[in-house]
Amino acid sequence: MGKTKTYCYGICLLISIALNILLSINLYVGGENNQRSLLTWSEKAAAEAEEVAAISCSGHGRAYVDGLVSEGQPVCECNDCYGGNDCSEFFHGCSADADSGDPVFFEPFWMQHATDSVVVTSGWHRMSYKYYKYVDSTTMSIELESYIRKLHSIAGNAITEGRYMVFGVGSTQLLSAAVYALSSENSSSPSNVLASIPFYPIYKDQTVLFNSENFQFEGDTNSWQSNNGTNNMDVVEFVTSPNNPDGELKKSVLGGKTIYDHAYLWPHFTPITGPSDHDLMLFTLSKLTGHGGTRFGWAIIKDKDIYEKFLNYIELADMGISKDTQLRVLKLLKVVVEGDGKPLFEFAYNKMRDRWDRLTTVFSKSTRFSIQQRHPLHCNFFNETRLPSPAYAWVKCEREDDDDCSAVLEAGKIIGRRGSRFSDKDRYTRLSLIKSQDDFELLLQRLTELVSLENGSIAKM
Amino acid sequence: MGKTKTYCYGICLLISIALNILLSINLYVGGENNQRSLLTWSEKAAAEAEEVAAISCSGHGRAYVDGLVSEGQPVCECNDCYGGNDCSEFFHGCSADADSGDPVFFEPFWMQHATDSVVVTSGWHRMSYKYYKYVDSTTMSIELESYIRKLHSIAGNAITEGRYMVFGVGSTQLLSAAVYALSSENSSSPSNVLASIPFYPIYKDQTVLFNSENFQFEGDTNSWQSNNGTNNMDVVEFVTSPNNPDGELKKSVLGGKTIYDHAYLWPHFTPITGPSDHDLMLFTLSKLTGHGGTRFGWAIIKDKDIYEKFLNYIELADMGISKDTQLRVLKLLKVVVEGDGKPLFEFAYNKMRDRWDRLTTVFSKSTRFSIQQRHPLHCNFFNETRLPSPAYAWVKCEREDDDDCSAVLEAGKIIGRRGSRFSDKDRYTRLSLIKSQDDFELLLQRLTELVSLENGSIAKM
Repeated sequence: MGKTKTYCYGICLLISIALNILLSINLYVGGENNQRSLLTWSEKAAAEAEEVAAISCSGHGRAYVDGLVSEGQPVCECNDCYGGNDCSEFFHGCSADADSGDPVFFEPFWMQHATDSVVVTSGWHRMSYKYYKYVDSTTMSIELESYIRKLHSIAGNAITEGRYMVFGVGSTQLLSAAVYALSSENSSSPSNVLASIPFYPIYKDQTVLFNSENFQFEGDTNSWQSNNGTNNMDVVEFVTSPNNPDGELKKSVLGGKTIYDHAYLWPHFTPITGPSDHDLMLFTLSKLTGHGGTRFGWAIIKDKDIYEKFLNYIELADMGISKDTQLRVLKLLKVVVEGDGKPLFEFAYNKMRDRWDRLTTVFSKSTRFSIQQRHPLHCNFFNETRLPSPAYAWVKCEREDDDDCSAVLEAGKIIGRRGSRFSDKDRYTRLSLIKSQDDFELLLQRLTELVSLENGSIAKM
Repeated sequence: MGKTKTYCYGICLLISIALNILLSINLYVGGENNQRSLLTWSEKAAAEAEEVAAISCSGHGRAYVDGLVSEGQPVCECNDCYGGNDCSEFFHGCSADADSGDPVFFEPFWMQHATDSVVVTSGWHRMSYKYYKYVDSTTMSIELESYIRKLHSIAGNAITEGRYMVFGVGSTQLLSAAVYALSSENSSSPSNVLASIPFYPIYKDQTVLFNSENFQFEGDTNSWQSNNGTNNMDVVEFVTSPNNPDGELKKSVLGGKTIYDHAYLWPHFTPITGPSDHDLMLFTLSKLTGHGGTRFGWAIIKDKDIYEKFLNYIELADMGISKDTQLRVLKLLKVVVEGDGKPLFEFAYNKMRDRWDRLTTVFSKSTRFSIQQRHPLHCNFFNETRLPSPAYAWVKCEREDDDDCSAVLEAGKIIGRRGSRFSDKDRYTRLSLIKSQDDFELLLQRLTELVSLENGSIAKM
């Protein structure tokens, strides 16, 4: 009986020790969690965000926490030409949409930098209209402004020392604010707003929309000059450098008041030959980090009076820019300036160069279609001579009878933006190169098909 | 020896079992953590947000993740009249600032609802300009729009069925968008924009700022009517109901095209007598949840053509509203509609009623100062008859020689907004009742001091 007892004890002991080992392993493995138990009110939302981000859309779409919901679950929002619950279906015969300048090609970079770029906003974060007391501009984050200045000194693309800064709802709002700030206040002689063909259509559309007594849109600088000579009439000239659509590094034609639109003046689109040093310069987050939906831009202004008119416009039109937006931009820029901007700018440049290499290979086989010439320049940021890799291809249809280039491309299942939208001939079409990889791959495929048909057979399509 | 062995086994078994129990308890207690181990990329930011939120500012200030930093730590941003590292110092003799309509009194509600109102935004969230493909308005969140409609049906303050909706940068931007959408496109006869004195100054300031050929500001509706009679000239009338500054439930005077500014049409400010059913109604998040800094408002529009002009204005002026802002508003509104809106509206109403009770007690002791009359109405939301509790007190200085009421109040260390800012007499001054509790307590203290001096001695100050 003693033996039995001992035997029983032995068995029990073994089981018990085994159990101890299992529990200990669990404790060890779970150990990391103990720190995590610090999280209280932010955890549920964080878990939800990660859960939604983990929803698989086959690499051809994305689910969002604010997305459309089906059966309580956010559904995949598929890229163009993809469909099905998990975006795995490709729509054959679908046209490549290269119309919009949606800068989604940055997305993979931000997924690689998830930990440093996520923003957690408490329900009571910055409820007030203003940031700080006892400072001049109470609707702009001083922290954010300092990061923007740091960014420019790293990129070497603009002088910010001793300059004023104003934030806007994308650079879109800054365009009209700039025209307002520079234009005459004397209604009897409105300022003349001009740009050089081909130019970004919004310059004209906004000026016409606001229909102000202070300014009017007068179209192309060159035709204006030939009609008015070099008389010192009151002009406000948009200088887009690099230019949208053709990527050219534009200079002022009229030499009057100028608005330098530098949306694309970043190392991934063009070699940075030196810091821009103009009186009024506009930048946008959209083409820097790819966050077009965040709607954030900034103006760098030399003159105090212009700055005050500019700021007054933003404050009166909108009472400043969303604090939530500014918080997110701050977080993003902290990532951008890491490693002196190398990680972001190299990622973006490599993407753009790769796309241009593949694009030029296709167009080199064509006599029917041509794209803009690119000239190498020394880039101070990368410290070497490089070709620009613009955000858009400016396609010209060379054939006499192809005077509607968009129509020709559309017949080849390619959607571009017609030249007349940029006040140029429809013999030209803009193709966006900054959309998702899916969009670019399909564009390249359609272009290859189109070029391979260059024996007149396209006319039969 | 067998005994010893058995004995030893027994002891070991007891120890082992004890260990089992301890480890099991740990496993049970730590159980919750196991879910937490799911968090990866969002955890660091969540922990940082909670850490900053936990910084003590003595209840007289707040530290923010995007705040000014000293020695790597965000510093306390103190409420008015408070200072020191932890905002524990009160500045005696400091003036009570009741100028701005900063709706910070909601802050405690959002701290009570921290878990449900926090937003976690991934670095790649909504980078695109548009939300969805294949839908009309691609810059507005459909999810958010549906919650706004739900909100109005709960609050019972506006008809949304069969109406169009447009989002704006606060209601501030919507004001000019509405004027644009309603005004004539015929420059030879601009529309006449009017409002009824006392009115919100931005109506005039924006119209003057944009200086459009399509419209011009013509001031007060009543003087306009007496000069122009009831001829059907092209007018766009701002009807602010409840009115800022005096809380009155205004109606249209001219009966032409109207913009109903319903910023304050919520159960905490005024009894909801029935749903507003006008052609163009404007609302803002600011006075609903207190998030003025988020800059979000919406328009409810009956007519399709007006809606399209309105939307075109927003899209061309700003290319839509920040996706980050829309994400946060969605999260906040999900909390607002919980419990059919009772928690938020009761919190806000109780705060406002308490402030009005204490305010009226002070003014009841005064013959020198009076405030607006309030008339009870039946509130369908709370299903009882209640007095309104407006966002502002509209103070009148009754003494003949007190024709500059702001100056009189300032001598008593109270900063208000002078009547002339609302195109009314300076015998009136607006006092804001929706700021922080600190601000209100100091305002009440200064008012009590001022009223207690009502024996002419104030004149000596």
